[in-house]
Amino acid sequence: MKIVLDAMGGDFAPVEIIKGAALAVAENKDIEVVLIGRETEMKAAIAAHAPGLRCELVHAEEVITMEDSAAISVRKKRNSSIVKGIELVKKGQAKAFVSAGNTGAVACAATLSLGLIDGVDRPGIGICIPTLTGVSFMIDVGANIEPKPNHILQYAAMAEVYSTQLLGKKNPNVGLLNIGEEATKGTEFMRDTLALLQAKLPNFVGNAEAKMLYSGEFDCIVCDGMIGNIALKVSQSVVKTATKMMKDYVKKDPFAMIGALFMSGALNKLKKRMDSSEYGGAPLLGVDGVVIIAHGTSNAVAIKNALRVAYSEVKHDINDKIKARVASLAVV
Amino acid sequence: MKIVLDAMGGDFAPVEIIKGAALAVAENKDIEVVLIGRETEMKAAIAAHAPGLRCELVHAEEVITMEDSAAISVRKKRNSSIVKGIELVKKGQAKAFVSAGNTGAVACAATLSLGLIDGVDRPGIGICIPTLTGVSFMIDVGANIEPKPNHILQYAAMAEVYSTQLLGKKNPNVGLLNIGEEATKGTEFMRDTLALLQAKLPNFVGNAEAKMLYSGEFDCIVCDGMIGNIALKVSQSVVKTATKMMKDYVKKDPFAMIGALFMSGALNKLKKRMDSSEYGGAPLLGVDGVVIIAHGTSNAVAIKNALRVAYSEVKHDINDKIKARVASLAVV
Repeated sequence: MKIVLDAMGGDFAPVEIIKGAALAVAENKDIEVVLIGRETEMKAAIAAHAPGLRCELVHAEEVITMEDSAAISVRKKRNSSIVKGIELVKKGQAKAFVSAGNTGAVACAATLSLGLIDGVDRPGIGICIPTLTGVSFMIDVGANIEPKPNHILQYAAMAEVYSTQLLGKKNPNVGLLNIGEEATKGTEFMRDTLALLQAKLPNFVGNAEAKMLYSGEFDCIVCDGMIGNIALKVSQSVVKTATKMMKDYVKKDPFAMIGALFMSGALNKLKKRMDSSEYGGAPLLGVDGVVIIAHGTSNAVAIKNALRVAYSEVKHDINDKIKARVASLAVV
Repeated sequence: MKIVLDAMGGDFAPVEIIKGAALAVAENKDIEVVLIGRETEMKAAIAAHAPGLRCELVHAEEVITMEDSAAISVRKKRNSSIVKGIELVKKGQAKAFVSAGNTGAVACAATLSLGLIDGVDRPGIGICIPTLTGVSFMIDVGANIEPKPNHILQYAAMAEVYSTQLLGKKNPNVGLLNIGEEATKGTEFMRDTLALLQAKLPNFVGNAEAKMLYSGEFDCIVCDGMIGNIALKVSQSVVKTATKMMKDYVKKDPFAMIGALFMSGALNKLKKRMDSSEYGGAPLLGVDGVVIIAHGTSNAVAIKNALRVAYSEVKHDINDKIKARVASLAVV
């Protein structure tokens, strides 16, 4: 299966991207990576870091940076790795696209080029989050910051399909992220959304209070992209700050330094579990093609995991299933 | 200085409330606690847990529970500890009110009874958050979930005053919590708010990206009550979940158990620093009186700290200073 991988996207491109490609094809012989980006840079990185890597290279002269405006760069940089890479999927020359580059640009280019699945009005970015009992799936975390209630219903349908197909859950339940459990809580938009989900979605369990986000009580968590993005980034800020504080305390305390050595196994397990790179990037759902947005700080393992998730989405015909699920909700 | 303390509010009322009162008066001889609640329950708790406590008791027959609707309970339960306690401040019989009870009911009763400071349109709940460099102040975390830009400007003024007077900061800067730094980020409301703050507030530094919330880069962080509440509760969920995961890993690993013993000093310091109870509850700012809302899970130390903060707010004439600051912004 051919998967296009943006060699120019992310803080550690192209080296970590290329190392990730090498890990992915070593792990799964069925994956054929098509690297897209500046040919000389890609070749140099392959020669230095993955000399045995066999993969197709497609040249794309331009690079959309993290600072570029999504809408403008997608229109102006037609020869960028993001725009050209997604075109390859559109033309049927590959099955999926993976990038650790500019999230907004990927979402914008994918929507314009691939279009949306029948019955879907807006794409959404989903993400797996670690919980006490395993993994939950949250959507949207930033594609659609002022959605309508109907968009959230569609996200719920996508989340159900993703959780069932990719995370192996049976009859996943769905909660609406809110500031409290009661139906009166939140903004008018949230109350309207709650009513719509209650009417249309058999597995809907009501408001998911923010303090329960990581409890594992909710398999799927739906929200507008503003709230979802804030929740995600604040979580990252807490983990980063607490880790830094801990390191500072340990440095000042010889007993704690010894303790940290003994605890290193447990601390590494915790770090791995809280680490988003383990979960393989964020699927852009709703577009008519498989697109995975990896975190900007992705290392080789994160890229490998993103390629694995892209492969699984294609294997599970996830978009056909989303189309069917969304259609079934429309007639309830 | 007389401070009214709600003996019936919070998960561990009345015992922890009364123990907190005892700690506060032992620490600061200038604080006189007026306990309000069911007299027999208060007397029994004092006899059992703080027999030497000298304080005034005011009987209030009714209790507003955590589950009660704020607006309805405040209207119907006129004899509750919250409504009667705030009335004592209104009548000038005490200088401040502290409760670990129903947040919405406290905010509602305080607004109705005390009214708002001249020039303030909506009250806001502020909170101190731990950062890499010390403490930041965030407002609003739940009082006003669909504010107008002008309300956020007023919150910024309140935050500046609070940070200067209570946290000892000089020329505190202010950031607007958002999903990105750029001026184009966020909802229409956020862009309008950004423009207003840029025009009116000399110490405004622009959007505070959510991933920087705990960095210490921003002294004051302003936001709508929906985003602020989500940010706060998601943070609590992360800390709680990571702590639980860590304990589970340690239990399964004998080396880690030894390590945890050596690290206990450092871990306790971290826990204390991340623990909101250390910061003395959340001031309800904008109402014409001093009101502190302590967390529902407050223990005696948290109550003591909330009383200390109430005392400091009165000592610093914080509301006069807010009034002056808000007035100065209106004429810029």
